[in-house]
Amino acid sequence: MKRIDYIRFAVIVLSLLTVIQAKSQQPDESGMIRKVYNEALTSYEAYHNLEWLCKNTKGRICGRPEAAEAVEFTRQTMNKMGLDSVWLQPIMVKSWDRGEKEIARIVSAKFGTVSVPSCALGWSTGTGDPGLSAKVVEIRSMDELKKKTRREIEGCIVFFNQPMKLTNLGTFTSYGESVWQRTNGPVEAGKLGAVGCVIRSMGIEIDDFPHTGITRYDDTVKPIPAIAISTRAAEMLSDYLAADPGLNFFFRTTCLAGPDVPSFNVIGEIRGSDFPNEIITIGGHLDAWDIAEGAHDDGGGCIQSMEVLRLYLATGIRPRHTVRAVMFMDEEVAQRGGQQYAKEASDKGEKHIAALESDRGVFQPRALAVTGNPSQMKKLAEWQPLFDPYDVKLISGGGGADVGPLKSFYPEILFMGIIPEDQRYFKLHHAASDTFEQVDRREMQLGAAGMASLVYLYDKYGL
Amino acid sequence: MKRIDYIRFAVIVLSLLTVIQAKSQQPDESGMIRKVYNEALTSYEAYHNLEWLCKNTKGRICGRPEAAEAVEFTRQTMNKMGLDSVWLQPIMVKSWDRGEKEIARIVSAKFGTVSVPSCALGWSTGTGDPGLSAKVVEIRSMDELKKKTRREIEGCIVFFNQPMKLTNLGTFTSYGESVWQRTNGPVEAGKLGAVGCVIRSMGIEIDDFPHTGITRYDDTVKPIPAIAISTRAAEMLSDYLAADPGLNFFFRTTCLAGPDVPSFNVIGEIRGSDFPNEIITIGGHLDAWDIAEGAHDDGGGCIQSMEVLRLYLATGIRPRHTVRAVMFMDEEVAQRGGQQYAKEASDKGEKHIAALESDRGVFQPRALAVTGNPSQMKKLAEWQPLFDPYDVKLISGGGGADVGPLKSFYPEILFMGIIPEDQRYFKLHHAASDTFEQVDRREMQLGAAGMASLVYLYDKYGL
Repeated sequence: MKRIDYIRFAVIVLSLLTVIQAKSQQPDESGMIRKVYNEALTSYEAYHNLEWLCKNTKGRICGRPEAAEAVEFTRQTMNKMGLDSVWLQPIMVKSWDRGEKEIARIVSAKFGTVSVPSCALGWSTGTGDPGLSAKVVEIRSMDELKKKTRREIEGCIVFFNQPMKLTNLGTFTSYGESVWQRTNGPVEAGKLGAVGCVIRSMGIEIDDFPHTGITRYDDTVKPIPAIAISTRAAEMLSDYLAADPGLNFFFRTTCLAGPDVPSFNVIGEIRGSDFPNEIITIGGHLDAWDIAEGAHDDGGGCIQSMEVLRLYLATGIRPRHTVRAVMFMDEEVAQRGGQQYAKEASDKGEKHIAALESDRGVFQPRALAVTGNPSQMKKLAEWQPLFDPYDVKLISGGGGADVGPLKSFYPEILFMGIIPEDQRYFKLHHAASDTFEQVDRREMQLGAAGMASLVYLYDKYGL
Repeated sequence: MKRIDYIRFAVIVLSLLTVIQAKSQQPDESGMIRKVYNEALTSYEAYHNLEWLCKNTKGRICGRPEAAEAVEFTRQTMNKMGLDSVWLQPIMVKSWDRGEKEIARIVSAKFGTVSVPSCALGWSTGTGDPGLSAKVVEIRSMDELKKKTRREIEGCIVFFNQPMKLTNLGTFTSYGESVWQRTNGPVEAGKLGAVGCVIRSMGIEIDDFPHTGITRYDDTVKPIPAIAISTRAAEMLSDYLAADPGLNFFFRTTCLAGPDVPSFNVIGEIRGSDFPNEIITIGGHLDAWDIAEGAHDDGGGCIQSMEVLRLYLATGIRPRHTVRAVMFMDEEVAQRGGQQYAKEASDKGEKHIAALESDRGVFQPRALAVTGNPSQMKKLAEWQPLFDPYDVKLISGGGGADVGPLKSFYPEILFMGIIPEDQRYFKLHHAASDTFEQVDRREMQLGAAGMASLVYLYDKYGL
């Protein structure tokens, strides 16, 4: 070994030791995390941005002018933040127009004619001007549907009335158990010859808000018009049917699907100091249902994602890897934003190492989640004491509809997530009740601070 | 030993063994607790009762007709529940009338005249018809006040403007640090010759709601009129003072304290099957500030307390000890309800073994608390797995202003409590924003189920 080789060897050993030390001997980060939380709790910027988004781009479902306004607003907001770059990523999205305000009525010889709150399901076909009137068959479970014959259903309106289960502690579980009625009900009913579908809103409480959301048709069967009625209306219709099985239901929708139109994902990033080509994505979806302000679903998640970058700038954190905030377009309909983002990343040869999605509302955070292998989860657990002061648990989970497509291009990608309280979420989800006023500034900011802290630790120490 | 003695001895041993087994070998109670939670999550009764209380007895501060209506409503509600007994416990309470809507204005040569949202502090003396106008001295901390001389304050209005600290995770901590301004500010300012007091509302967010609450005068100094202004108005007044220190503040209040008047605690109980003379009290306070519906403070706590008894009846739990729901009157002013309850208990020779107070809002419960000795806390910890499915921690804490007086008569009494999320609480506390609409049914019911489950275990197995 020449002298120069000794020096080289020494340099390599020292470098390795530094890396090992960085990986194993983590200095106490409680001060930095406190700084992040303090900045979040004392700032009003994100909250004011959410107010702007909710009040000025209400109804920003993909393809609508409101969605274009939301794109422009978030682009400008990130531009003003002083990020390293901000850009729009073009995508093509489906378009659909709700048309005139829906009309829905129970028409009963016994109870008279009663109007009920309703809205067309997303991407439903319309009844057209004359509307649709038919007898009603009530279905309260998937099993009940399976037992039905064509003779029982043909020419009727199928009324899906399986309530969200109240006794699940986690309301996402109840949603998962019931949402088949909205996504698949119309096509299944269509297969049996139904002429229309009425769905009990996917709402956890009894109230007067109809909840919309996507329904998926199928090439094998002619699409039939489908509406959601409020949970209270569903209870009423069910009661009336018990006493007057021959009643008619009338509804009129003029919604119409249009051609694909251009839209954008909105992206901003802070470039990594050490690994600029390794990317951590933090995102929410910018589109929201056309009847809602989309405060919790998912304006808040977008605002939190931008807030993570603002917190970095405000607290002087320079990430080692590139950290991106992505406002995904079109989560609610066909997830084209997430698909395009992943495909383009791969086409460009980007290296994506982790992705955190916030799309469960912006209530008080209960947990931060990572989908790691056992050794990663073990290391994650070592960070728990750093989150104890904020009453946040580090658990297994994460990912989501928008970051999900990255997995097929980056099988090793680490998914992260944030799990807020969810008792209130399905009162608001996809309904006009999802307003800015339902968001608490501190709760949303605690979420953003938690996301920033988790990504900060991962960026610095890895998992 | 005679044969009969052997038999007696055997009976005693068997009895002891039964007791020991009951105390140490707790059967799995997860099914019963699940039953309690299921009943709570599927019932609307308590929520509808809260709505009635909020909408029909708004402003039920002690001594007001609305408080009498709340007494009657809760008495009737408990009567209908089929409890073993329901009764009213007479107390005398203070009375006070807010008078005409308060007027408050900044009068600045530089900025003109600006009206600001205001309300008299509870039990404040009024300015009388002409109102009060004076120069303003701003105080931002207790230290700053201590340094002030009579010459600096005399003839002025003291403006207490120490914001609630945003960076505390627990908002009750911030309240504790700032509330001296409201409770003691006016008397301290009075001692230095101030003619009036303006308090920054004890609100955690910047908004337009003035928050009232009790202020305490002192026999040594003449009471001066005191109002709270909204946090946004406080920020504005502070800014204006910086630019125009000579500005005047005008306010007019016609509030007036009256004589003591009769009122009641409302009490309902299920008598214990084994120990009817040993009492567990569960309570909230029925009075609420006159400008508020008092949904979270503390209509919800009262409703939860009644709901615990309803849950017992609905799930077939017959407690071994007597379990009482108490709607305490006059927590907000002089806590006479709590004092009378404790005194009468002692006078009647009742045995009080435990008391649980719910008075921190009815948001999603985070913890149930017990003020136990180390051996009791150890036993409590054994119950933790029963609460894990509901994401509720068993911690040290509990007690409160209404059950507190029991301690002087029953030094061994076990205090319990419920700790909900508190990020939203001090946006609403003592303000017109504390409305029924701010309460989530599931969150309130999860609290009631948690309270019922803790008391169920304590009643059955002791601590």
